[in-house]
Amino acid sequence: MVSMDGKKGSPANETWKKILLVVFDGLGDRPVSDFGGKTPLEAASTPNLDALASTGACGLLCTAGVGVRPGSDVAHLSLFGYDAKKEYFGRGPIEALGVGFGLKDGDVALRVDFGTVDDSGIITDRRAGRIENVAELAKSVSGREFEGVKFFVAPSVGHRGIVVLRGAGLSAAICDGDPHHDGVAPVKVAPTQKSADAEKTASALNEFLEWSHKVLKSHAFNKQREKEKKPPANFLLVRGAGMHREVESFESRYKLKAACIAGGGLYKGVARMLGMKVIAVAGATGKADTNVAAKISASIDALKASDFVFLHLKGTDVMGEDGNAKGKKEFIEKADKAFAPLLKLKNIVVCVTGDHSTPCTLKKHSGDPVPILFNAEGIRIDAVQTRKFGERPCASGIVGKILGKDLVPELLNLAGRAPLVGD
Amino acid sequence: MVSMDGKKGSPANETWKKILLVVFDGLGDRPVSDFGGKTPLEAASTPNLDALASTGACGLLCTAGVGVRPGSDVAHLSLFGYDAKKEYFGRGPIEALGVGFGLKDGDVALRVDFGTVDDSGIITDRRAGRIENVAELAKSVSGREFEGVKFFVAPSVGHRGIVVLRGAGLSAAICDGDPHHDGVAPVKVAPTQKSADAEKTASALNEFLEWSHKVLKSHAFNKQREKEKKPPANFLLVRGAGMHREVESFESRYKLKAACIAGGGLYKGVARMLGMKVIAVAGATGKADTNVAAKISASIDALKASDFVFLHLKGTDVMGEDGNAKGKKEFIEKADKAFAPLLKLKNIVVCVTGDHSTPCTLKKHSGDPVPILFNAEGIRIDAVQTRKFGERPCASGIVGKILGKDLVPELLNLAGRAPLVGD
Repeated sequence: MVSMDGKKGSPANETWKKILLVVFDGLGDRPVSDFGGKTPLEAASTPNLDALASTGACGLLCTAGVGVRPGSDVAHLSLFGYDAKKEYFGRGPIEALGVGFGLKDGDVALRVDFGTVDDSGIITDRRAGRIENVAELAKSVSGREFEGVKFFVAPSVGHRGIVVLRGAGLSAAICDGDPHHDGVAPVKVAPTQKSADAEKTASALNEFLEWSHKVLKSHAFNKQREKEKKPPANFLLVRGAGMHREVESFESRYKLKAACIAGGGLYKGVARMLGMKVIAVAGATGKADTNVAAKISASIDALKASDFVFLHLKGTDVMGEDGNAKGKKEFIEKADKAFAPLLKLKNIVVCVTGDHSTPCTLKKHSGDPVPILFNAEGIRIDAVQTRKFGERPCASGIVGKILGKDLVPELLNLAGRAPLVGD
Repeated sequence: MVSMDGKKGSPANETWKKILLVVFDGLGDRPVSDFGGKTPLEAASTPNLDALASTGACGLLCTAGVGVRPGSDVAHLSLFGYDAKKEYFGRGPIEALGVGFGLKDGDVALRVDFGTVDDSGIITDRRAGRIENVAELAKSVSGREFEGVKFFVAPSVGHRGIVVLRGAGLSAAICDGDPHHDGVAPVKVAPTQKSADAEKTASALNEFLEWSHKVLKSHAFNKQREKEKKPPANFLLVRGAGMHREVESFESRYKLKAACIAGGGLYKGVARMLGMKVIAVAGATGKADTNVAAKISASIDALKASDFVFLHLKGTDVMGEDGNAKGKKEFIEKADKAFAPLLKLKNIVVCVTGDHSTPCTLKKHSGDPVPILFNAEGIRIDAVQTRKFGERPCASGIVGKILGKDLVPELLNLAGRAPLVGD
């Protein structure tokens, strides 16, 4: 019933606008007493964001539903209009995609911390002294088969990595091997539901973990660390099992060729899951020290070859989780300075929002909505005077309160690309 | 869960209010520079609409979903709370119902333009010189059977009409026979999916089209046209196939006896599809020259015998599609003048809105929400001062942003007719 008709009423492709979506991770916040009850965003000096808001249309966004407190993975899937209830398969696969691992349908992926286990089998350091690079160790235990299941290990950042299981009849219904604290033995992985697949997966994984512990213990890299009085990274503490399933690509769903610019692996993983092109930018760290100007410049460049560019900024969430309201405000101000080029864009729909709230007073994600602004030529500008971009100023905007699933349709509408439903 | 209880809390029938729903087609718009950035509705002088808004409750309506760009058929079904994904079967059946054809479950209906094909089989005029009446021609090719399928043809307005196929094992999965431009041969109708039904339907339809071309070519009416140097209406250019399915009537769904007053066939068709009584009004043209006063008068009259009257005004959409902002503003002003009697209604819930936006700057439907006002005795009046009825003034109203599916429930609530859900 839905058709992208080129004949009846739709403009030619060349009149379609392109779309830039800027997502501040954990942007939303709650009143901070040091800021006289303003949120970090409301307290921040943001002339560029205010200019975009004042010549645009504003509202509030509940990415995963009203009052729903999403993780960053679910928040981003929801932002892109994917139904987390049906199209989210756990953090493991997204992390694996984030490090560039080529997952296949049916693979089971887990996150892994390279930790230290002593001779009595007790975890003494879940991060192996925050070891900086586990690439060599990962390589030494990757590619082996147990009980018909092939195991791949790849490094991520620092002590982190991913483990992927490939084979017939796997299941992600298994518990974490990571006990999430030191001083105990690693958990023997067990099925979380009664099924032959889950039992087989847990059994093969346990065999692999035992074998890899032996390999890692005797690895020259770890022997050298022990000589240097550093804890050896000799055990794979796995968690977050998920089975990878191909989902409809963003391009197929919305007829938008999409690219992603992000520092954090999770966001690259979500982008790869949806078939977006991930563009590397020097200085994009996935932290507050990221080079926002370089990312903005790369985003504008990416709009030449793509219809839709997703730009992710992590600093707001990092500061929120730290309870650092001043740091959050300063990161927003730093980003705003780099946003000046956004005011000069022509024929581009610009949208700035967050994926969820991370109030500094809570130091964790909350279900509070995030402010959102849309800016494009010809839009129903809703400000009677200069609008400060912020949680409460945006609440009275013409956009009202929208859900994550409404975001891309609204962007398509403003870009003149919405398909006609009906006749 | 849903019960129409007469006992607990609900008033007796005689205290129920009746409902008048006025729909301006394509009412919503975007800023127009000639109007200093106001929309045609915001720029229009609308004292009567403003009075209704100022003593009522306002908001914005997304008929088919946030950002969704609906055709007029889907927009109206959505307005009446029907789910277009499940209860929309294509434009053909609605057009057939619009001309008063009595469709049966399983009939396949198409729109048809009576066009001109020359001796070499090329379309020279898809509208046969905008022939004014095809009733006689339609009659000459209606009622014949091919391959077990009976074909009916009925005239609509000007060169337009409908073709209905009746028989066992039909399918609407067939392409248009209309190539949508002159200078080529009509398209041979083909199945759009692999099924025996679709193949049979296409084959019978092609046979009928070939036969009817011969009949029309030699028809005395066309011979006379040729003598007068007018293009003969000798070919049936079919499009928009849909299979008619009975849906639950509006009256059954909402316990409201409903009537429709509209000029355009499409709107009468939607009304008939939902079992509403269609009331003919002299001077209702389905265009900007329509007699709004006569339609208002007929609507008020219709409220005597009906619980719910749907009044449709097409002029706003016509002007929007033409990009004529001044014309749109003037049509709204003309309608507003005729709305004076609405201010004097007692015990009637009055609602004025649009089915979708047709911004003059775009000359086509958009997914922007439309303003909506509800007026009834005892309603939560939301205006702090006189409210101009318009897109942005309504955005801050107490109704907020609602979806098409919410409209009739809200009307039932204000009319004191909402069923108690639960106990």
